[in-house]
Amino acid sequence: MHRTKVRIVEEALDANNTIAQANRADFDRAGVRVVNFMSAPGAGKTALLERVVADLPGVRVGVLEGDVQGSMDADRLASLHVPVTQLNTDAGFGGECHLDANMVRSALSELPLEDIDLLVIENVGNLVCPAEFRVGEDARIMVSAVTEGEEKPLKYPLMFRACELVLINKIDLLDHLDYDLALLEANLDQVNPGAARMPISARTGEGVDEFRDWLSRVPDRVRAAA
Amino acid sequence: MHRTKVRIVEEALDANNTIAQANRADFDRAGVRVVNFMSAPGAGKTALLERVVADLPGVRVGVLEGDVQGSMDADRLASLHVPVTQLNTDAGFGGECHLDANMVRSALSELPLEDIDLLVIENVGNLVCPAEFRVGEDARIMVSAVTEGEEKPLKYPLMFRACELVLINKIDLLDHLDYDLALLEANLDQVNPGAARMPISARTGEGVDEFRDWLSRVPDRVRAAA
Repeated sequence: MHRTKVRIVEEALDANNTIAQANRADFDRAGVRVVNFMSAPGAGKTALLERVVADLPGVRVGVLEGDVQGSMDADRLASLHVPVTQLNTDAGFGGECHLDANMVRSALSELPLEDIDLLVIENVGNLVCPAEFRVGEDARIMVSAVTEGEEKPLKYPLMFRACELVLINKIDLLDHLDYDLALLEANLDQVNPGAARMPISARTGEGVDEFRDWLSRVPDRVRAAA
Repeated sequence: MHRTKVRIVEEALDANNTIAQANRADFDRAGVRVVNFMSAPGAGKTALLERVVADLPGVRVGVLEGDVQGSMDADRLASLHVPVTQLNTDAGFGGECHLDANMVRSALSELPLEDIDLLVIENVGNLVCPAEFRVGEDARIMVSAVTEGEEKPLKYPLMFRACELVLINKIDLLDHLDYDLALLEANLDQVNPGAARMPISARTGEGVDEFRDWLSRVPDRVRAAA
């Protein structure tokens, strides 16, 4: 029973990787770079995107918005006049807790790939499964809110290990929390010492310029790495 | 392909329910009531349990601690001299994002059922899948931190619908947030109007007495409902 389950999981992840590569090839052909944007529920992904997507110098952004159901986040971003495509994971199920490559593939024809340079895929809020499923992205960013505690890299190592950039959000609340930013960084160093990290506040705007700059340079970095 | 996946998911949930009923029967025989305790990562489940489990009037508590990996939360609770059993979900996988009935069943022999009246199962931090998998519990509690935003009941309705009690944690931060407690309650009413709700702060202790009282009366309520 256990061996069977391991095999099913491995086969599902294999199939996912194959489809993710096909997505990547299609994005490459269209000249679109892709960021997979992940966090726990309520860490501030949408609020951070609201701060930057309409205003990336020289980069036209589109958003693919993943949610179990509804379109609340997509509606917020669409009001910024950025192309937003909604992808719900509850079709036929109680609701998937992550996006996978096939779900993203099902949305490809709806994406305005000719009109954008960078696609930000806002994943379902979850610190476990989104990190296990590549969707065809060039870079992965996660948000860890200081309200969640400093130990999260040790409890959800796969997620923190998967990302090139960790945004440490809600730093406007630091004065009101017993939170040790140096401890978070030390814990992050244990699982992913090479990860870039940026303290930031979607609420006050602190650190937002650095994030906007990082995001606008994704196409250049991908080109340089190729 | 899609039909096959739906069938596999349905069969898995069917099998889970069968095993959950077997767990429930074993708990009943031992006279132990069981609470499934859920939330997003970092909402404060462990901090709230630290406030109450060692001090429930007339009720001996044990904890089954679910985590992807590690035993940080179990160690915190064990220091209160409460029996704690660790259950990790990463054996053989990248890490399951929830507990299921079979995982709990695998831990039954390690639980001191003769020495406790109430078992609190602290689930993996996740607002999606834990709500889909019954584990043999009598009651379900979730924690929604005010730092996560008021819209969470609408974005993760299955979780909010599944619970008898919603703890609205971190209210000590309300003065520093743009958070509308009445809006959270209105959103909760849309998906689960019958849910009890308690504003609480694990940090300051506000509301903790009410939570302790609710938890200590779980055995009585189960008996009355039988």
